[in-house]
Amino acid sequence: MKLDPGMTTLQLIEEMGKSGVLGAGRLYRATKLLKEVIEDEETTVFLSLAGPMVPGGLRKIIRDLIAEGYVDVLITSGANLTHDLLEAFGGAHYRDQAGNDEELCQMGIGRIADIYTKSEDFTVFESKINTILGKITEKNNNLNIREFLTQIGHLIDDEESILHTAAQKGVPIYAPGLIDSMLGLQLWMFTQENQLTLDASGDMHELSDLVYASPKVATVILGGGLPKHYALASNILTGGVDAAIQVTLDRSEAGSLSGAPLEEAKSWAKAKCESRLVTVIGDATIIFPLMVAGARELMEKSV
Amino acid sequence: MKLDPGMTTLQLIEEMGKSGVLGAGRLYRATKLLKEVIEDEETTVFLSLAGPMVPGGLRKIIRDLIAEGYVDVLITSGANLTHDLLEAFGGAHYRDQAGNDEELCQMGIGRIADIYTKSEDFTVFESKINTILGKITEKNNNLNIREFLTQIGHLIDDEESILHTAAQKGVPIYAPGLIDSMLGLQLWMFTQENQLTLDASGDMHELSDLVYASPKVATVILGGGLPKHYALASNILTGGVDAAIQVTLDRSEAGSLSGAPLEEAKSWAKAKCESRLVTVIGDATIIFPLMVAGARELMEKSV
Amino acid sequence: MKLDPGMTTLQLIEEMGKSGVLGAGRLYRATKLLKEVIEDEETTVFLSLAGPMVPGGLRKIIRDLIAEGYVDVLITSGANLTHDLLEAFGGAHYRDQAGNDEELCQMGIGRIADIYTKSEDFTVFESKINTILGKITEKNNNLNIREFLTQIGHLIDDEESILHTAAQKGVPIYAPGLIDSMLGLQLWMFTQENQLTLDASGDMHELSDLVYASPKVATVILGGGLPKHYALASNILTGGVDAAIQVTLDRSEAGSLSGAPLEEAKSWAKAKCESRLVTVIGDATIIFPLMVAGARELMEKSV
Amino acid sequence: MKLDPGMTTLQLIEEMGKSGVLGAGRLYRATKLLKEVIEDEETTVFLSLAGPMVPGGLRKIIRDLIAEGYVDVLITSGANLTHDLLEAFGGAHYRDQAGNDEELCQMGIGRIADIYTKSEDFTVFESKINTILGKITEKNNNLNIREFLTQIGHLIDDEESILHTAAQKGVPIYAPGLIDSMLGLQLWMFTQENQLTLDASGDMHELSDLVYASPKVATVILGGGLPKHYALASNILTGGVDAAIQVTLDRSEAGSLSGAPLEEAKSWAKAKCESRLVTVIGDATIIFPLMVAGARELMEKSV
Repeated sequence: MKLDPGMTTLQLIEEMGKSGVLGAGRLYRATKLLKEVIEDEETTVFLSLAGPMVPGGLRKIIRDLIAEGYVDVLITSGANLTHDLLEAFGGAHYRDQAGNDEELCQMGIGRIADIYTKSEDFTVFESKINTILGKITEKNNNLNIREFLTQIGHLIDDEESILHTAAQKGVPIYAPGLIDSMLGLQLWMFTQENQLTLDASGDMHELSDLVYASPKVATVILGGGLPKHYALASNILTGGVDAAIQVTLDRSEAGSLSGAPLEEAKSWAKAKCESRLVTVIGDATIIFPLMVAGARELMEKSV
Repeated sequence: MKLDPGMTTLQLIEEMGKSGVLGAGRLYRATKLLKEVIEDEETTVFLSLAGPMVPGGLRKIIRDLIAEGYVDVLITSGANLTHDLLEAFGGAHYRDQAGNDEELCQMGIGRIADIYTKSEDFTVFESKINTILGKITEKNNNLNIREFLTQIGHLIDDEESILHTAAQKGVPIYAPGLIDSMLGLQLWMFTQENQLTLDASGDMHELSDLVYASPKVATVILGGGLPKHYALASNILTGGVDAAIQVTLDRSEAGSLSGAPLEEAKSWAKAKCESRLVTVIGDATIIFPLMVAGARELMEKSV
Repeated sequence: MKLDPGMTTLQLIEEMGKSGVLGAGRLYRATKLLKEVIEDEETTVFLSLAGPMVPGGLRKIIRDLIAEGYVDVLITSGANLTHDLLEAFGGAHYRDQAGNDEELCQMGIGRIADIYTKSEDFTVFESKINTILGKITEKNNNLNIREFLTQIGHLIDDEESILHTAAQKGVPIYAPGLIDSMLGLQLWMFTQENQLTLDASGDMHELSDLVYASPKVATVILGGGLPKHYALASNILTGGVDAAIQVTLDRSEAGSLSGAPLEEAKSWAKAKCESRLVTVIGDATIIFPLMVAGARELMEKSV
Repeated sequence: MKLDPGMTTLQLIEEMGKSGVLGAGRLYRATKLLKEVIEDEETTVFLSLAGPMVPGGLRKIIRDLIAEGYVDVLITSGANLTHDLLEAFGGAHYRDQAGNDEELCQMGIGRIADIYTKSEDFTVFESKINTILGKITEKNNNLNIREFLTQIGHLIDDEESILHTAAQKGVPIYAPGLIDSMLGLQLWMFTQENQLTLDASGDMHELSDLVYASPKVATVILGGGLPKHYALASNILTGGVDAAIQVTLDRSEAGSLSGAPLEEAKSWAKAKCESRLVTVIGDATIIFPLMVAGARELMEKSV
């Protein structure tokens, strides 16, 4: 690899490709694959998010990928949606807060590694989401999770929001573990006095239709967990995804899905035998911006 | 540490306690804490499972903990329940299968690290679970997930089954991401032609009652994921758990909850400021049997 | 796996063997292999140590393995020898010291994770090792590293010391990176005013003779680093080791030797094609005592 | 973070800085710190290398940093020097070789993760290094390791070589574990019939002089192992380094130095209390090129 001051992100990644081994090689192959699946008209692109991707600064990148039509389906933890709403409602993610966890608790500051949230932002969140839940139930009190999230997206007016942008663009958001989040908690508290049922298996029907209607599916997996499994497993009915990229720091030996090699998905027909699979070991807040910037530069270059 | 051939598990762990540092010290402290929370009449013990704990050989250990009244609440991925049923229906988990993932797929063998499953066992699973789903809907077609799982537990007759034993003992099982599993897939396929709605937020009511009714709560966390979050977050209404033990190979730096230090939960009031928290870094299929064998020997010794 | 209170360490490990997968299976296979190589008269057993194995509480276990003739060659970082001497000279390893690293520094306390050392112990160490260095140079001022370490072993009188026991038993200790340790630092300071040369490549001659004279070699590797490489690479001249066990938390993807799978050693003829190789992912202060206690119980049982 | 196609590496890293948390924040801070220590006339910059940095494609980047006067001292494993020589002598590092490790062995191909070496290149290496060793002993047969490496550097004529460039620029290379490498093995075989002694502690004198003569020291640590320890410990005599950056995938809990947080070095006076310390968790073949490209662009920009 040879470096030149002022080189573009893609030029750097192409140097990594010349080396072609270890992490550098993986990142190069992931970037190229990302560009190809985004560009391919026939490929439906899933993006799955676990871990603090929105608090970790990827909100705008994800929102832009949706806005530009590069991501067709989003699968996420409830937490990332909660944090998207937190920002949509005027809250923020903070850094450099002093104090140990006990002191933070007393100050009303929640910690995610070196990211901090404030309870006053959650108070605003609770109030605003309750208003939204009220509006939703005025029209309908039996929805699947995807419909519920689309309605929320239409009812907020932050152009930078993932939920809002996805609703505007018609990109479905699936969050099978939604209930296990601050948004889920508010939903449950709301249902103590209001009628609103989310059918746990209700999304599967439209998701399977979507998979059947897709000539090819590629999935980009940031972190593991339920979103990774859902992204892969929802493709089992058609023999598996055609391409997958995963970015993770988890490891494989103890058998958890989060750290599992993508190849394992082939044995379950969650990835096709001929599928293209690239794993990059690393922190998604470094690797994903690199990969996306590189892929987008590559798309412009190849026009 | 000094070793003697033929020493009991507890004697070994007590040698680790004499050293008291690194993993050895963590394991000793976790064992002692586990014994204390199991023994304490006032403490409700949650066990949360993510990763292949049942396929990984912990089924009987977990079942026995429930049977003996040592675990009061189980929170798990849908996958561990699917694999519990697979064994209840006569299937098994296999090892030493030759072939790469593409070859395994053609042989109908699904791989989880070095654990293998056979499609014929899943065929039996599908048939038997469908019969059970039919029986459940005869009585009721609107349940929360916990009720659904209890009913399944009553409808199978394997004494070694976690689901069955939990149903017999009145131990609730929560699986907030149930839908994202083979069991969830069968459920969805069943609902294509039958009426059966699982309310995604339906469990929260009884789980919060249970938390409010518990003078103290301790949670033992194997793996991370949704079950870890649910086990901690469900205690937020009462200021957090009083004790927690986690066993994981995930790491903390990228901010994912699975690898997060338990101390972080204090900032969110998911663990009380004065709570006792022990993390052991390691493979749960080694660490958990050690810890449970040690804690149970310690209980007998202290009688 | 089925647990019984009061079960011996071996009984627990045999339960892990019945499961046979993930960490449990690895630990069982490692225990059996350890027993076999220890028992086999024709196999020379190397033990390589990187990381804080002596500060981490394994000193007595390692010393006993040497005393009982179960380990034939020790390869270690200089740090583990420094800490063996620290204890031989009356010092200790401490736990539960309060303060951040800056405060510890001002108190003269050095930290290794949750292990603490005191500068007063190092002061004693410096004084005593200087006396020993003086005695060594009275007889000889040109040695290889192994000879130097044997001489130190003979000049201390702590029966619990690894260096002392190895010297008594004629077990060679190799420490190719010795100079990079407190012991190395003292050696260098001593040579400012005294004549004492350690030949960096001087050990290779006798180590290669030892390897050539061994019908079979097995190596047990705790941690990675230079000791791991040296233990494997010294066998390259005879086509590689016949068996190897490694215990590590390092991972393989970035290509560092410490996390490399043992299989990779086959490509370099550092492990024979037919060699038996087992890696256990975990903290050596948990895994190694388990494995040794299990192997020794198995030896007694099979008598 | 906001991405623009065609953005430079620095622009991308500055977006990461705006987020400022998790890996993105770490990378940004490391980049800024790297720029500052390189630019500061008073700071002596150490670079320590463990793991396959030369085979992993960083050879040219490291060579250029030396050539441009940005790195003042290099501390490395013997393996990275062996691989530098392998390339200097016309060999290469290969990728995409088919076969398992046993097959690779029979083909004479050594594997480092997904990097491959060929035995024919090592044959050339052996022949050429022997000629060089012969030339060195014509003049001198008692050297310290640094002198030995400088002489090799002068005796090869590859402008792209790290050893050659360092010799030309007067940048010292320290390799305390040199003997444990293919270069060390050749050295030992050479000494079977020739007189050439490398004094194991001989480097310490000049390295301590160098440290004492440096108003400030910063160390950049890729991987851990002996080079990390040596880079930090050699500064203990002056109270520790003033700044340090480490890039690693190792973890801290088991206490190995490779994964230890840099803060721990403060307790040992290997890093000053007021030192600036940044750790980036990741694969060095991705992180280091990013960081260097960013730092160099930042230097040009700030002119």
